[in-house]
This record gives sequence, C-alpha cells and structure tokens, in this order.
Amino acid sequence: MSDLLSQISFNEIMAFEKEKRTTFVNSLNGFKTVGLIGTKSKNGQTNLAIFNSFIHIGANPPLIGFICRPSSAERHTLENILETGFFTINHINENILKQAHQTSARYDRNQSEFEETGLTEEYKNDFFAPFVKESRVQIGLEFKEKIEISINNTILIIGQIVDVYFPEEILKADGFLDLEAANSIISCGLDSYHKTKKLKRLSYAKVGKVLETIK
Amino acid sequence: MSDLLSQISFNEIMAFEKEKRTTFVNSLNGFKTVGLIGTKSKNGQTNLAIFNSFIHIGANPPLIGFICRPSSAERHTLENILETGFFTINHINENILKQAHQTSARYDRNQSEFEETGLTEEYKNDFFAPFVKESRVQIGLEFKEKIEISINNTILIIGQIVDVYFPEEILKADGFLDLEAANSIISCGLDSYHKTKKLKRLSYAKVGKVLETIK
Repeated sequence: MSDLLSQISFNEIMAFEKEKRTTFVNSLNGFKTVGLIGTKSKNGQTNLAIFNSFIHIGANPPLIGFICRPSSAERHTLENILETGFFTINHINENILKQAHQTSARYDRNQSEFEETGLTEEYKNDFFAPFVKESRVQIGLEFKEKIEISINNTILIIGQIVDVYFPEEILKADGFLDLEAANSIISCGLDSYHKTKKLKRLSYAKVGKVLETIK
Repeated sequence: MSDLLSQISFNEIMAFEKEKRTTFVNSLNGFKTVGLIGTKSKNGQTNLAIFNSFIHIGANPPLIGFICRPSSAERHTLENILETGFFTINHINENILKQAHQTSARYDRNQSEFEETGLTEEYKNDFFAPFVKESRVQIGLEFKEKIEISINNTILIIGQIVDVYFPEEILKADGFLDLEAANSIISCGLDSYHKTKKLKRLSYAKVGKVLETIK
C-alpha cells in the first residue's frame, strides 16, 4: 500500500452525488457495533430496526444513546419509544445477519419486521418491549432523554439500562464482557459487516509507567 | 456456549464497584472505532487523546460527533477545540496501538502527548490542528456545535469535515472506504483492541426483494 495519502476536501465531498456521499461519510466514521432496536406501540404493534449509531453516554447510571433520523424508516422506532418509554438493543451475530439487514427496508407501520424477517419476539421479566430471541446479547432500556441536534434535524435518544442478558461465560471477573466470544459482529458504513479478532487488552495508562498486556 | 442467557439488572450494575461498573457498561455497548483527536491551543501547545465515542451525525453536510467528559483527561481536548475551532481525528492501526493507548494517561496541560508517546505531529494544507503522521486515515474538522447532555454532565461535540486523507487504494467507486485494508483497528470497552475480518457487503434492503452480496 502506498505511503502517500490521497486528499478529499469538503467541497469534493459535497460535489459527490447523494448516495456516494452517504456511503463515503458513513464508512469514514469507522467500524461500529450494529444492533437491532425492538419496540412495541401502545396498540401492540411491534417494530424492529437495525441501527449502527450507538454511543456510550455513561456508566453511573448506565446510559446508552443512539442517533435517530426522524425522516427515515427509523421514525417508527422513535414513535414507539416516545409513546411507551421502553426499547431493547439486541446485538447481531453472523447467524442473523441477513434478517437484521433486511429490517432496514421501508415496511409499513402495520407490518412487524419480526414477522417479515423471521426473527422471534421474546418477552421476559415483565419488560414491555420485545427482545430478539436469536440475539446473544440483549439489553432492555427505559427512555430517559431526547436531545434535538438542530444542525441537521437528527435526534439523540438516551436510555437507561434496565436488564442485560448474555451468555454467562462471556462475563469476566473485572466486569469485561467478551463480545467476540458471543460472536457479536460489527458494521462499516451502511452495508459492510465484519467479525473481530482480538489483538490484546492493555493495562490502565499512567504517566511514566510501561503498558502491560492484560491476560 | 450455553443457550441460556444470564441476567443482570440495573440494581446489580449499580451495586458493582465503580471500576467494574465502568468496564461492564463500556464493553456492553459494543465494538467501536478508536481514534486519536489532535488539537493545539492558541499558545501552540499540542494535545493528543484517544477517544472511542465517535458517532455519525450526518453526510450532508458531512458531520462527525463525539462524546467528551469534561471532568476527565479529555478536558484539554475540549478546551483546545472551543478555543481554536479545529481538531483532527486519526484512525489507529496496529503499529501505533500502544502509543495511542498511552495518550489516555493524565499528562499535564503543558505536556504534549505527541512528544510523550513518540507519535509525530503533521501539518498540511494550512490546517490549524495537528494530524498524526503514523495514522493512515486522517480527518480534519471544524467545530460546529456543542450540546450539553445534562443527565450526566457530558458533552456532544459536532465537527464538520474539512479534509480527509487516506491511501488511494481504499476508496471504492461507490464511495465506500475499505478501512480494513487501511488496518484501522477497533476497541471494545476501555482497553481491548481488535482487528476486523470482512464477512460481506449486502445490497440496499427493499420490501419483498432478496438481499444480494455486493462484490
């Protein structure tokens, strides 16, 4: 691979046709966890949608955020969360990759992506929103805050973790969840999916101290 | 791996001691791109800090956000961005993993993490903030918006892309950047680093249409 780097400027990005610009900026932003957000309307209509815009907000209390585009197919998810106050995040593994990706199609409000894609609704512990049975890492969340990002009319939704479900073996003594062992996959851009291969864990960085690999 | 999933509730997470809770919630949130944010103060003091909280805000115009914790070592980055209006995001590859992780140590305001870790400042195209020469995917951004997340006193910083640098070979005709070919690595939690292995790209999902693999 060449040592010299190519340059693309703001004006060149803006001159791309729309799909190319979307693909470019989404992939530039890097690899990220993809998850399925499960919701249910007051009337009992379930919805399932793939998102790749999750963000760690804080651990105390445990909060997860994600960006939602109200003008897109994502609006059904948003409406259900604001109407009922609950949602689930379900990690995606290789076995359910195609079904997960298919949830991004523009189904009608009265169609459930669970039925349309063949994924299975799961209810447990009296939690209102549906989990995805085929997912190996499932998180139930309570809606906490909606923040409008005026610069491009997107919304940051923040939820607080109510319950987490995962295979017992992936929880390490120090609290680390080995998601690679759970086969959670990641995405890049809007349509590329990847497995991960662990390099190492590194010790807490301190000034003047040599880093060690955590076994 | 067992089929049955373990359950951990909000109350159990809150009862974890602090470090375990932080490790658990950070890893639960999944794999994500890590990048080095490069900044420079008005006085010319450079700063470099590792972040794993990047989020795609939008493509038109091209916007990237990240979460900043003002109470932590991250505050020098925040101060420089608000003072000067510019910052860089530099992808991390395996060759600079240890130096990148070491930037999270609590260096003083008058110490540069470039000098302390041996990474190289690079200036080009009259951009104010320093890039990391060893990085293969570099993004220069102009500060656009600061959004306070009151629920836990964190801040969402949004920047607009000014310039992007990358190896020419990784840009595909449709705008997709093959970050795997650029050896960009990802993190899980606060200290675990991983390579990626491509599974596939899937076609745009439509109702009633079978997904195809994009070659």
